[in-house]
Amino acid sequence: MNITADTIWSAVRTVREKAPVVHSITNYVVMNSTANALLALGASPVMAHAEEEMEEMVGIASALVINIGTLSPAWVRAMFRAAEAARKRRIPIVLDPVGAGATSYRTRTARELIKAVPPDIIRGNASEIMALLDSNAKTKGVDSSASSDAAVDLGRALHAECGAAVCISGETDYTIGRTGGIRGRNGHIMMTRVTGLGCTASALCGAFAAVTPDPAVAAAEAMAVMGIAGEIAVSGSAGPGSLQVYFLDALYRLSAEDIERLLKLEVEE
Amino acid sequence: MNITADTIWSAVRTVREKAPVVHSITNYVVMNSTANALLALGASPVMAHAEEEMEEMVGIASALVINIGTLSPAWVRAMFRAAEAARKRRIPIVLDPVGAGATSYRTRTARELIKAVPPDIIRGNASEIMALLDSNAKTKGVDSSASSDAAVDLGRALHAECGAAVCISGETDYTIGRTGGIRGRNGHIMMTRVTGLGCTASALCGAFAAVTPDPAVAAAEAMAVMGIAGEIAVSGSAGPGSLQVYFLDALYRLSAEDIERLLKLEVEE
Amino acid sequence: MNITADTIWSAVRTVREKAPVVHSITNYVVMNSTANALLALGASPVMAHAEEEMEEMVGIASALVINIGTLSPAWVRAMFRAAEAARKRRIPIVLDPVGAGATSYRTRTARELIKAVPPDIIRGNASEIMALLDSNAKTKGVDSSASSDAAVDLGRALHAECGAAVCISGETDYTIGRTGGIRGRNGHIMMTRVTGLGCTASALCGAFAAVTPDPAVAAAEAMAVMGIAGEIAVSGSAGPGSLQVYFLDALYRLSAEDIERLLKLEVEE
Repeated sequence: MNITADTIWSAVRTVREKAPVVHSITNYVVMNSTANALLALGASPVMAHAEEEMEEMVGIASALVINIGTLSPAWVRAMFRAAEAARKRRIPIVLDPVGAGATSYRTRTARELIKAVPPDIIRGNASEIMALLDSNAKTKGVDSSASSDAAVDLGRALHAECGAAVCISGETDYTIGRTGGIRGRNGHIMMTRVTGLGCTASALCGAFAAVTPDPAVAAAEAMAVMGIAGEIAVSGSAGPGSLQVYFLDALYRLSAEDIERLLKLEVEE
Repeated sequence: MNITADTIWSAVRTVREKAPVVHSITNYVVMNSTANALLALGASPVMAHAEEEMEEMVGIASALVINIGTLSPAWVRAMFRAAEAARKRRIPIVLDPVGAGATSYRTRTARELIKAVPPDIIRGNASEIMALLDSNAKTKGVDSSASSDAAVDLGRALHAECGAAVCISGETDYTIGRTGGIRGRNGHIMMTRVTGLGCTASALCGAFAAVTPDPAVAAAEAMAVMGIAGEIAVSGSAGPGSLQVYFLDALYRLSAEDIERLLKLEVEE
Repeated sequence: MNITADTIWSAVRTVREKAPVVHSITNYVVMNSTANALLALGASPVMAHAEEEMEEMVGIASALVINIGTLSPAWVRAMFRAAEAARKRRIPIVLDPVGAGATSYRTRTARELIKAVPPDIIRGNASEIMALLDSNAKTKGVDSSASSDAAVDLGRALHAECGAAVCISGETDYTIGRTGGIRGRNGHIMMTRVTGLGCTASALCGAFAAVTPDPAVAAAEAMAVMGIAGEIAVSGSAGPGSLQVYFLDALYRLSAEDIERLLKLEVEE
């Protein structure tokens, strides 16, 4: 996979120029902050969840992001309708399985979404990704690999199961796609003290997937940009309050030099 | 219409003294930020959407703001009930037709709300306002005027159709009422990179409508105060993150001198 | 009751070490800001409202916070289910009766919740607490006491009625429990210009109740920490926008010295 500081910067510039519409069906907690992150990056967020308008709203979008952070039956129905409409229009779909594994309602919903309309990108933490694997794949995933990194195995197993680019975020962000894996090491521990930055990463995956053909590359671009903007923000912050403010400023001001200077990325073919 | 830096400042002071209760039925994305803007201005926000309590909640409010940014059937029913209760109590109603034109569900809901209970103020961008006009009025609106400014025509056509003061926001904010139009030129392009500042403008329309008898003047007051606070905020900002923080600070600290110095307004009788 | 700067600091440290999961069913306006406050303090917020997952979500929580700020029937049902599950697991329950007294739907819901599953802590302002008392208790509450402080009487009356620690917030925060009362005088008037800081106080009550056996002490810890972080934040703020940013920073950085230096607390046995 071809991903370097140059290609990431090129993707950022394309987002800023094209301002792709990213339709998000996301949780109540992060609607405001993810919309602001998309705007700061240069994309155009749209939030809508009524079944009555799913097809039309997807119809004006360049990517769909589904985040199951605060579910209820009507929202789940809208997610399925939106995913089907997005698949018909061949726009990329990102799934953030927030809390999969924590409750069976979330695990089941995420699995059924994946089965009904396989997304292009799935982004979650290790325990969420683990919860999406059927037990067979879980065993195979863990057994079939010599890698010492459990996240790598998980990503490979889920990718094998559903075909999506799988991005497992953590201290190292690991993205696996059709032609290999990408390890990103940007970001800062204080980012875990701001609610919804994982959800923001998924929203940015939508923006980059709208302008980058390979979903795995798009996900890695999003994680790199998140992490770099986060590092810049932390360096001026006195805590998580100012971090989230400066994070939006950093996204908005992100430059080729920032990416060049701070990017920590390894591609494994 | 009588609107000057002095009368705007007088309206701000009245809001601060009376702290009018502004009942908002608004979208999930902006609930927090619009409540904070109302508080920073000096008003008292109330957010409630359950049909079970609409009449009572409207009963303690001095203005009602309806924003269709994230609809669903139960919320639409509550909007109608609230609007009817507000009309009975003769408190001003502001409608923000977010996304009208983008989906037929939104267009239809906004039109039906206007038909059932004509609001006192409608505030939206040009394409949202355009979507509210029936095709007949659209043609008449555009044809019947020698004005070179399409927004003016739109505002006049919608005002003629429903009687509401119509505020079309953009680089120039144009408000049309019974006795003429007001052009406001405050604001800054970076404000479009913060989610929900249009919705905030509509919320502030509610606060000013609670203390200003002429709806068109109230809307123009809200737009001027938004724009001026925004300009002050931008001047200290490093991006949209700090902009939204300083915007609330600027609203809270807004002075007669700020308005006098920065106001850009033209009244057309 | 044993509550001093030392014990409050010890509770803060325990929250930071144990990162208790606080399950909140709260209103749309404050979901983001209360989640961020819990994270800044060191707790682990979870937000979920689907009936389908209430038992499981409560099953991983160390405290449950129910806030009735934006009700609807499905949410009310989830609140009852969550409260029952929390009672079975014997984890503390905090109730924030936002707007009780403003509409009968809120008053009724709060009263029914208290009757069905008496919470460990009820935190509200004086008029909300007043609305929860039946008229008999109201009379007794007010008449049976020589205290000149109406809030004390209210707190005693509601505590007698349902057994919960009752925290009435205002310029003075008064908490009454089984063995007496605690008066806290931290905080700043500008905090009333930020939406949802009352809701944030209730969320922090959940975090402290997860690590402090006596609910009244937990509530007083939360109010003290809120007020102290607020005072620190105000001192650097230019208005309510920067206040809410610095408030999160202050919570995150709160030290034993801050508490020692700023705490204003009186215990009445």
